[in-house]
Amino acid sequence: MLGNCVENVRNKMPLVHNITNYVTVNDVANVLLACGGSPIMSDEPMDVEDITSICGGLNINIGTLNQRSIEGMFLAGRKANELGHIVLLDPVGAGASALRTNTALKLMEEICFDVIRGNISEIKTLAKGSGTTKGVDADVADAVTEENLDEAVAFAKEFANNSGSIVAITGAIDLVSDGKECYVIRNGNPEMGKITGTGCQLSGLMTGFLVANPDQKLEAAAAAVCVMGLAGEIGWSHMLEFEGNSTYRNRIIDAIYHMDKETLDKGANYEVR
Amino acid sequence: MLGNCVENVRNKMPLVHNITNYVTVNDVANVLLACGGSPIMSDEPMDVEDITSICGGLNINIGTLNQRSIEGMFLAGRKANELGHIVLLDPVGAGASALRTNTALKLMEEICFDVIRGNISEIKTLAKGSGTTKGVDADVADAVTEENLDEAVAFAKEFANNSGSIVAITGAIDLVSDGKECYVIRNGNPEMGKITGTGCQLSGLMTGFLVANPDQKLEAAAAAVCVMGLAGEIGWSHMLEFEGNSTYRNRIIDAIYHMDKETLDKGANYEVR
Amino acid sequence: MLGNCVENVRNKMPLVHNITNYVTVNDVANVLLACGGSPIMSDEPMDVEDITSICGGLNINIGTLNQRSIEGMFLAGRKANELGHIVLLDPVGAGASALRTNTALKLMEEICFDVIRGNISEIKTLAKGSGTTKGVDADVADAVTEENLDEAVAFAKEFANNSGSIVAITGAIDLVSDGKECYVIRNGNPEMGKITGTGCQLSGLMTGFLVANPDQKLEAAAAAVCVMGLAGEIGWSHMLEFEGNSTYRNRIIDAIYHMDKETLDKGANYEVR
Repeated sequence: MLGNCVENVRNKMPLVHNITNYVTVNDVANVLLACGGSPIMSDEPMDVEDITSICGGLNINIGTLNQRSIEGMFLAGRKANELGHIVLLDPVGAGASALRTNTALKLMEEICFDVIRGNISEIKTLAKGSGTTKGVDADVADAVTEENLDEAVAFAKEFANNSGSIVAITGAIDLVSDGKECYVIRNGNPEMGKITGTGCQLSGLMTGFLVANPDQKLEAAAAAVCVMGLAGEIGWSHMLEFEGNSTYRNRIIDAIYHMDKETLDKGANYEVR
Repeated sequence: MLGNCVENVRNKMPLVHNITNYVTVNDVANVLLACGGSPIMSDEPMDVEDITSICGGLNINIGTLNQRSIEGMFLAGRKANELGHIVLLDPVGAGASALRTNTALKLMEEICFDVIRGNISEIKTLAKGSGTTKGVDADVADAVTEENLDEAVAFAKEFANNSGSIVAITGAIDLVSDGKECYVIRNGNPEMGKITGTGCQLSGLMTGFLVANPDQKLEAAAAAVCVMGLAGEIGWSHMLEFEGNSTYRNRIIDAIYHMDKETLDKGANYEVR
Repeated sequence: MLGNCVENVRNKMPLVHNITNYVTVNDVANVLLACGGSPIMSDEPMDVEDITSICGGLNINIGTLNQRSIEGMFLAGRKANELGHIVLLDPVGAGASALRTNTALKLMEEICFDVIRGNISEIKTLAKGSGTTKGVDADVADAVTEENLDEAVAFAKEFANNSGSIVAITGAIDLVSDGKECYVIRNGNPEMGKITGTGCQLSGLMTGFLVANPDQKLEAAAAAVCVMGLAGEIGWSHMLEFEGNSTYRNRIIDAIYHMDKETLDKGANYEVR
């Protein structure tokens, strides 16, 4: 079923406006191209409204945020809301600094997000609404495991209900919920954590998936998570013994480039709770 | 003949100042190193005049422009003109936002460019001088094809004459004209469009080619286009079945790293009209 | 002996705050992940103090500096000093512009650096304390060679003593000194100069090495230099005939991903003077 979402992306070639960090921006662009979408990057306040207007979706990622780009995020977000575009928030580092936490919370107040995608620590920070400083990667103590899965699913549903957004909490086990249902996804490979920006890449990809599948947003978000995880599995299978995280980065994007309906339907590993 | 231009780049190791977007900047740097040049990046107004002074050429790319970097573009451009350096404009997204269109047009008014390189939609926007919003990639309706080639060649020549710059319009068929002659180039591979920044890379490369070939600027610009397209062909020939756009990006830069006079003279596919 | 330093990085997983240029930032992040560390990037003045507080080390790289990020460098540097964190300076382009030279010198006045890592021309500029304009890559006339090695070692020791920082001067022959001893390192491959950012990557890596080895900072700095050079040798051994600088970049990071105590102890090529 999720395979249809991939096909729609290839057919509709969604144009996605990304306000994203300069660390992983090149990979975000190449991932969007790999899945059949088209990326545009712009963060200057005087530029973002025009750029977002010609796109179908907006991906707001607060990594390496600055005062200028924060202004751009609000302007672009409001314009995208006005136009009924898909809007995604990636709260990179929420919990790691007051500026990041507060910016993410203020964006959630003023902009209507179709999806919020982050790691469990970032999402917990947003749920609590407080600016405590923890770290940038997910805290080990927070990790979603088979043992605390029921609780984590309940948390995901509650966060989705309270925020009014689909939530995608990614990690070893991924959760994607709209408040009613929750996809529990077990694709992926632990070595993906050794590559910078797989989360950022997923946010770009997911925005494209929602733009191309506006009538099944939850499925589209879950499909994007499965695509990324499955690409991580396929990419890993092509690694030579001496290759490491830099080549693995290429292998994952390459696998997305070849991803199609059949591959995803066969390889997606999820249940719905 | 164009092969000489490659040799001159390897021998003269041109130093190129790039004010360029943060999406593709790493690839621009590696492409310049691959062809034998040397890249420097700087966009801070207080820094750009010193940096451009020690270089031989300046590559101005307006992707991810902001108010600070725009100021840097004008300061660096004027200084490079004063010093008689090569200056290239890459009007990324002209037509996609008023800020981009107007910045490109104002740069063309105040700075003397040796070359302007863009896709057909960007160049048409500059030719019309108006800020209509279209998109970032070339509009399919605008594409240069075998059917409209005579008309497109005439347009390229006219634009070159009116702007006083060599124009390089790149796409499936590339056109490079100084107003009198027009190189029609048929190197390349359609899959290059699935990699972010091949245009940006070409602009960096082309700046280096002009710096190293000041007495044959038109040939140098055409040679850079042929090098990029031929590298796209050679790189594609080394791709394994499971590899995609991310590995292809590396393969193209790798092919430029190995490009020499003989390879280019044998592989360049062009006619002059 | 240096191999222990690698093990400590893998065991302690140091969190490193990088204020670094947008050209090579992705590679810096992946190199830190490859060696077992964890990178965070932030340059906004309102964000840097919180971010640096949760890290163990701070890597300040002045490539593509701007007025905002310069303010961020001073704020983060002072906070890191307050907290007793490791702080490294990479004076990219000192000597190439007045802004870069003066920013590096002012940082050295106000911030206490554990290590300063640069090429010989950058370090000579800092030693002279003057803002003459030379270039961004090391000047050939400055190069450390077997012929001028005694003089270069004396210079490194003197600079370390005067600055109160460990100095790492990297090039064909690398020198790492704390003023008393000087590691003379002969790992590496000349083709590393054809990849953008191997110096920036080393600065990120070195910061992680010092954070994980606080009681043997000189050894840690020398170990990072050996790791980078040895990875350049190992990566080169895996190159296919048609591969070039873009693939080589991946191969080097891949080799760091596989680097361990035994490999380094066997491959490190140095003497202590």
